Amino acid sequence: MEHYQIYIISDSIGDTAENVANASLRQFPNMDFQFNRHTRVTNKEHLEKILTEAKQYVSPLFFHSFASKELTDCITQFCLFHQYSAVDVLTPGVEAIAATTKQVPIPITGALRKLDAGYFSRVEAIEFAVRYDDGKDPRGLRTADVGIIGVSRTSKTPLCMYLANKSIRATNIPLVPELPVPKVIFEVPSSKIIGLTNSPEKLIRIRKERMKSMGLNADTSYTNLARIFEEIEFANEVMKKIGCPIIDVSDKAIEETADLVIRHLKKINQI
Amino acid sequence: MEHYQIYIISDSIGDTAENVANASLRQFPNMDFQFNRHTRVTNKEHLEKILTEAKQYVSPLFFHSFASKELTDCITQFCLFHQYSAVDVLTPGVEAIAATTKQVPIPITGALRKLDAGYFSRVEAIEFAVRYDDGKDPRGLRTADVGIIGVSRTSKTPLCMYLANKSIRATNIPLVPELPVPKVIFEVPSSKIIGLTNSPEKLIRIRKERMKSMGLNADTSYTNLARIFEEIEFANEVMKKIGCPIIDVSDKAIEETADLVIRHLKKINQI
Repeated sequence: MEHYQIYIISDSIGDTAENVANASLRQFPNMDFQFNRHTRVTNKEHLEKILTEAKQYVSPLFFHSFASKELTDCITQFCLFHQYSAVDVLTPGVEAIAATTKQVPIPITGALRKLDAGYFSRVEAIEFAVRYDDGKDPRGLRTADVGIIGVSRTSKTPLCMYLANKSIRATNIPLVPELPVPKVIFEVPSSKIIGLTNSPEKLIRIRKERMKSMGLNADTSYTNLARIFEEIEFANEVMKKIGCPIIDVSDKAIEETADLVIRHLKKINQI
Repeated sequence: MEHYQIYIISDSIGDTAENVANASLRQFPNMDFQFNRHTRVTNKEHLEKILTEAKQYVSPLFFHSFASKELTDCITQFCLFHQYSAVDVLTPGVEAIAATTKQVPIPITGALRKLDAGYFSRVEAIEFAVRYDDGKDPRGLRTADVGIIGVSRTSKTPLCMYLANKSIRATNIPLVPELPVPKVIFEVPSSKIIGLTNSPEKLIRIRKERMKSMGLNADTSYTNLARIFEEIEFANEVMKKIGCPIIDVSDKAIEETADLVIRHLKKINQI
């Protein structure tokens, strides 16, 4: 099958352009694409070198994002001339905001933001989440922005990492019927805790996949329906006692659960 | 100051639309925006309810991504009629790909992808990275896709988490002059290891920020220039002995370092 060449070109790290390319490509599930990512392209000579190289392919396709109008114009002209398709990922958004706010945009490349306060807080939040993962030290809850509780396989760890990437300090504490619930859970404001729950059917499926992926027998007490009911029952009781919000993750992607958590934290002014 | 209302509306989780909105907003650093995110909007009634609600604001601004043409048309008509600005995040990319490949897109909403194999491998990679973080158990390197080594504050942990989010199983092992280097580092293929290095000036700055953020005195041996030189020297010798690629992170965002790592792993067919 033919490989179509996708060029991601940006004066920054190119994540936005790649994100848009990937989302668009999803509607072409039967095609094969090869990515060429060029980041920190901040002058015309560099850009022209990449464009010249791209000409070796039949119909290369460009997703680009430049703060600089000169570079945007350069790639637009090039694609018009050669009749290549191109997607300008940034300009429509910038123009829409300018039209709405009547403000003139300041062409800042994303690259400039690197070592700012936001960067430090993100790194720290990630380290925080790792340090207090899986109930390792429940006291982390005191200094956390949010504590995530729930039975095994409700995606607590990935959720905390996702939140950490948004600079939110999250701890997670598993709920297991056989283990005492850490006291600190009842000592912090209940609004700072979020309970995750999942349907027994989904839990069984996820846990079986998990056991298989670990090369273990999929039929153990870990994947037993009665046991799973018991665990969920136990977790629900703890959550009711705390009075914390509960999110049913059975139907949600991690990004979506995270979005609900973030909204809640904003509402209670925790972040 | 006036808050402009940004609506993120998607039939999926809206990450792509929000990503584009954020990248565009960066060029308006002095303005205040409020986000309204509506996800999993998959029918016209739901969409119309949101649009009606948005009319209460002066000049709401829309970033939307729908696989369905009907919903895209609905919001486009609405914005034209009310003279609101809107950014269609997905359609230009889909149309460009269709033009290049001469294929008809299949309107799949991102939401459908949720519990697929990719989801499981991402969750596992994140758990893997947490389990083997910070040299906790160097043997993790054997089953990892990549091992990240380097002195303190070269962003090893955030890099591993970022890679894990892309389903790459990464371990990280700190290099400290006083500690023996784990033997396993010399037993796996050297191409599976990546060394991170940083300039002494950047390290001092980052470490001082770190100490301050922990409420500690910023002037300790941890932030002492001679000590930092010694650490870097030691790390460089270990990396030379292994013969692994080395990335200087002093000038790079985590996403960028990750991009280099991913390219390298692809080149050696590790992922």
